[in-house]
Amino acid sequence: MHVFLNGQILPEERATVPVTDRGFLYGDGLFETVLVANGKPFRWPQHLQRLRKGAAFLGIGLKASDAELSAALAELLRLDAFTEAIARITLTRGPGPRGYSPKGADHPTLVIACHPLPGVSAAGALPRWKLITASFRVAAGDPLSNLKTSNKLLNVLARAEAEARGADEALLLNTDGHIVEAASANVFWIDHGTVCTPPLDEGALEGVTRGLVLEICRGLGLPTDFRRVPPAALNAADAVFLTLSTLGLIEIVELDGQSVSRSDLVRRLAESFRLQILVEC
Amino acid sequence: MHVFLNGQILPEERATVPVTDRGFLYGDGLFETVLVANGKPFRWPQHLQRLRKGAAFLGIGLKASDAELSAALAELLRLDAFTEAIARITLTRGPGPRGYSPKGADHPTLVIACHPLPGVSAAGALPRWKLITASFRVAAGDPLSNLKTSNKLLNVLARAEAEARGADEALLLNTDGHIVEAASANVFWIDHGTVCTPPLDEGALEGVTRGLVLEICRGLGLPTDFRRVPPAALNAADAVFLTLSTLGLIEIVELDGQSVSRSDLVRRLAESFRLQILVEC
Repeated sequence: MHVFLNGQILPEERATVPVTDRGFLYGDGLFETVLVANGKPFRWPQHLQRLRKGAAFLGIGLKASDAELSAALAELLRLDAFTEAIARITLTRGPGPRGYSPKGADHPTLVIACHPLPGVSAAGALPRWKLITASFRVAAGDPLSNLKTSNKLLNVLARAEAEARGADEALLLNTDGHIVEAASANVFWIDHGTVCTPPLDEGALEGVTRGLVLEICRGLGLPTDFRRVPPAALNAADAVFLTLSTLGLIEIVELDGQSVSRSDLVRRLAESFRLQILVEC
Repeated sequence: MHVFLNGQILPEERATVPVTDRGFLYGDGLFETVLVANGKPFRWPQHLQRLRKGAAFLGIGLKASDAELSAALAELLRLDAFTEAIARITLTRGPGPRGYSPKGADHPTLVIACHPLPGVSAAGALPRWKLITASFRVAAGDPLSNLKTSNKLLNVLARAEAEARGADEALLLNTDGHIVEAASANVFWIDHGTVCTPPLDEGALEGVTRGLVLEICRGLGLPTDFRRVPPAALNAADAVFLTLSTLGLIEIVELDGQSVSRSDLVRRLAESFRLQILVEC
């Protein structure tokens, strides 16, 4: 496999960064994971827009144009004959002096890599996952929560906790006790036919698939709502589902060991999502 | 300069890690920064103990023994003729498959690098810093706050905010509104002769220098206390100071643009700290 690194395309085993890269030292960076279907990145402009927004917030210069990023991805897909894949763009502040101050770190590191799609993909059957509630909470008002930064140790811990408890994914609550998102996905629930998700200011990532599901609901004339709720709202829901770029919609069948109601509406939304991939890619 | 990387000592420019290293992807790792004085690392066993505690919590295997780590550091100091330096140990979960799950990432990355001491060092004059209060808060109850993990983007942001506001360092409050620590240091204040610092469960790192200052206070017969307080406590204090491994004690002269009282006790504590370095190194 090949990797794009700072303007060059290299075999994966030669794609390395200095140990002084602030991504490696402090997680001082951002990333995006993008579904590639039929050889095309899905909702690519939205992912690039989020990456640029994060880079601006962190003060990391991303000089490459959208066209250059697109060309690099296309070349990677061509070299490794990928039609279905997950593309990951990583942008860090690059090598710099020791210490937290970002001063003097002016040569960002830009990586694009493609990975095979896991067995179940956004274009395939509706995955069903067991969810647990993570044992810790994330900060209400965290200024980084809406950005996809490289500080993902809490997500790693939450996912490891889910796996240790025989589940697939972990639900994160914030310090106000409200539902925020899952470790790797946004969370939705259906309450008497209304499709609900937490507002972004609870600390949720502005997921590209989250946005698309809200679009689809509007298109189908389904009511939507942004709610600040404790996790008990999920137990009372008609159905619970997750959204993520790589797998699309995921139906939740269990929360903390208790069965969760299921609704045919989730399947309908997932079908609309898959259709949208076909239309756009 | 030379760098120890996974058992080998290399020139710094050849010390690189794969772009699949989870330290680079997610900040999935830990680090320690240690003062080297007179060619010896100060309070080295305490730093290694904290590193091992963090590694155990994150489930990252650190196979190297204390003796092996000591030998690697000694060799680096010898090769680059360092007598005064800052040593940094970095331990990450190493390369692994994409995705938050730590499964399948079983070859940790271990790096030791030495850096010249900045102009003002723990062994030198008492530095005086201006402090601001960071505009965001950290999560009360964050399970990672007591560990020195590689997720340091909030610290980077806080430090950048301090610099943008003409200060040297930023004070972090938690979501309960209590003082926690500074971006790169523990925080202390003196209240009518009692040396105070937040308890660890407010989210403070268990700093090696923090521990030593508490030891010194006990040795000098000074009363100490662990307090959960809003930032106003600092305005009312006799003096405010920071502690960090690389610089020792730092006197705060200004908080959010307001002068802060100063006390000769801070200078006395700093002198005791410097004496301890002379005794142990």
